[in-house]
Amino acid sequence: MRLPIVCELCCRGRPIDELKQMKDKVKGKIVFMNKPMERTYKLTLRAYFENAGLRYRGSIEAAQLGAVAFLLRSLTTRDNDLCHTGGTARRDDADPIPAGSISTKDADLLSALLKKESNVNLFLKFNCKFLTDITSYNVIGQITGTEKPDEIIVVAGHLDSWDVSVGAHDGAGCVHSIEVLRLIKEAGLKPKRTIRAIMFMNEEWGGSGGKEYAQSENRKGETHIAAIESDLGGFMPLGFTVKANETQVASIQKWQYLFEDLGMHWIKPGWGGTDIESLEEYGTVTIGLIPDTQKYFDIHHTKIDVLEQVNPRELEFGAIAMTILSYVLAQEGI
Amino acid sequence: MRLPIVCELCCRGRPIDELKQMKDKVKGKIVFMNKPMERTYKLTLRAYFENAGLRYRGSIEAAQLGAVAFLLRSLTTRDNDLCHTGGTARRDDADPIPAGSISTKDADLLSALLKKESNVNLFLKFNCKFLTDITSYNVIGQITGTEKPDEIIVVAGHLDSWDVSVGAHDGAGCVHSIEVLRLIKEAGLKPKRTIRAIMFMNEEWGGSGGKEYAQSENRKGETHIAAIESDLGGFMPLGFTVKANETQVASIQKWQYLFEDLGMHWIKPGWGGTDIESLEEYGTVTIGLIPDTQKYFDIHHTKIDVLEQVNPRELEFGAIAMTILSYVLAQEGI
Repeated sequence: MRLPIVCELCCRGRPIDELKQMKDKVKGKIVFMNKPMERTYKLTLRAYFENAGLRYRGSIEAAQLGAVAFLLRSLTTRDNDLCHTGGTARRDDADPIPAGSISTKDADLLSALLKKESNVNLFLKFNCKFLTDITSYNVIGQITGTEKPDEIIVVAGHLDSWDVSVGAHDGAGCVHSIEVLRLIKEAGLKPKRTIRAIMFMNEEWGGSGGKEYAQSENRKGETHIAAIESDLGGFMPLGFTVKANETQVASIQKWQYLFEDLGMHWIKPGWGGTDIESLEEYGTVTIGLIPDTQKYFDIHHTKIDVLEQVNPRELEFGAIAMTILSYVLAQEGI
Repeated sequence: MRLPIVCELCCRGRPIDELKQMKDKVKGKIVFMNKPMERTYKLTLRAYFENAGLRYRGSIEAAQLGAVAFLLRSLTTRDNDLCHTGGTARRDDADPIPAGSISTKDADLLSALLKKESNVNLFLKFNCKFLTDITSYNVIGQITGTEKPDEIIVVAGHLDSWDVSVGAHDGAGCVHSIEVLRLIKEAGLKPKRTIRAIMFMNEEWGGSGGKEYAQSENRKGETHIAAIESDLGGFMPLGFTVKANETQVASIQKWQYLFEDLGMHWIKPGWGGTDIESLEEYGTVTIGLIPDTQKYFDIHHTKIDVLEQVNPRELEFGAIAMTILSYVLAQEGI
């Protein structure tokens, strides 16, 4: 598909609103959403969440206004040549338009070209497609509780990632979770409640693994006390965020002292994780392991999210943190 | 030099003592010091300091016992093929024996060979040599204080590194220090006392840059209130160590709250840094910027200590930390 005109949105402020105001100009054109991720925030995660909606909803909004394709500046704080993939919504009642990301350097180049030339040709070729859904599986292992085997503490990551790489940091939560079981076994501990490691399938494209798990008939007769998810990479752990009521949060915060030696200085209210979110309606307290994410969005959903990027020592610290928390939860409940 | 026999020291416990007890066996042989850096410590720095003496003194001790060469297992917690260089002492009154490091993988291979074979040949070829001393320089820039220009707050790193690479993390303190001045300028701040950025020369081979600076006639009439050194890489900063009396440490600790937002949760008594150590006898409080060093000894003094290893965001956090501390010191003194 070769298209002669690009309509660029530099996107200060609210880009989707800006897009709607440009309705007349968008029709028949490629929308180029060139909003850089904010670099001045301490938390790269905050900058990511500010822009992630553009990737998720941008092409739907552009299509509704008559655009013929959608190009997104990659969600990263780095200047490089990497394309960052990620979940992009489509409407059930309308055909999607082609949508893709370009690297930050290419976005800057295209932006510069558009300032110089009134008529820029852009050749787009996509080879991605939707395949039919197939049956797949969550992978589960556990150490069964000695006293309350039907009360479950989940430790989790997700098995899937984007196909540009193996998703080494993206899937670090799987290694964390397996390592929790190994460390508990190696230490000779016998938890009172069951500690269950779950490697969820399909977090990236709708979270069906997590949803199916929560709703499964197999879960009847079990009580899921708490679930801890690691889904922000295998970097040094900094703290935990807990989605629960005030009393429950305080009950977990009283164990803060157990994590100081790991360099983890806070447990605070916040989000648990995509895969364990569906357990919340069954009363499960969900907890997110929060590592240092300064580098996560350099590699997130790109071809360089490979094993070499993961430092074994940093990965182990995350596993130790999840081991301690899951074990005290298994012993003490909430 | 081809030598037929290797005397390996597996070196549990105190390797130098062990070496002395093996006196009869060492004569005419290569001493192979194969003590792994301890991986189970949280602080890689602690493991490094436990072994660094072997690199520094090992060949002298071996030579005194009649060994003809000295081989050291590289100081790292990783299994890889990298040689780690570093300061190795020699006696003025005796010729040094050849001394070098081999990678951890090669050390394991050699160790396995020595267990199988009674007579292992080792071919050693060194191309390093001592050159004549030449004159070089510390590089200094400053923002002169508006009220007390002769009272100095030093921010420092060192310019030199080992010649296997550019020493990107090793020299990160230079970038930190230059960036302190740039940030203060950009923020439009006018410090009361002088903030001086010093890139010291020759930290690695005797620290002559720091010594010369402290003793220089040019320093007369100046009072060095405090000096902050960054010499543990450009990773995320965790805290500061302060070499001073209790009252002075407490006086700096009262600013702890300024660093919480950077994720730095402690200021504690400790070491300042090699280059600023000589200032201590003039009453200067010396302070070390302590980053997360989980990965530092993966690359320290090797050919992979290159720019690509430094993350710009993490580097900037260190600079911001040094900027805040040097500025409050310039305004408030100690």
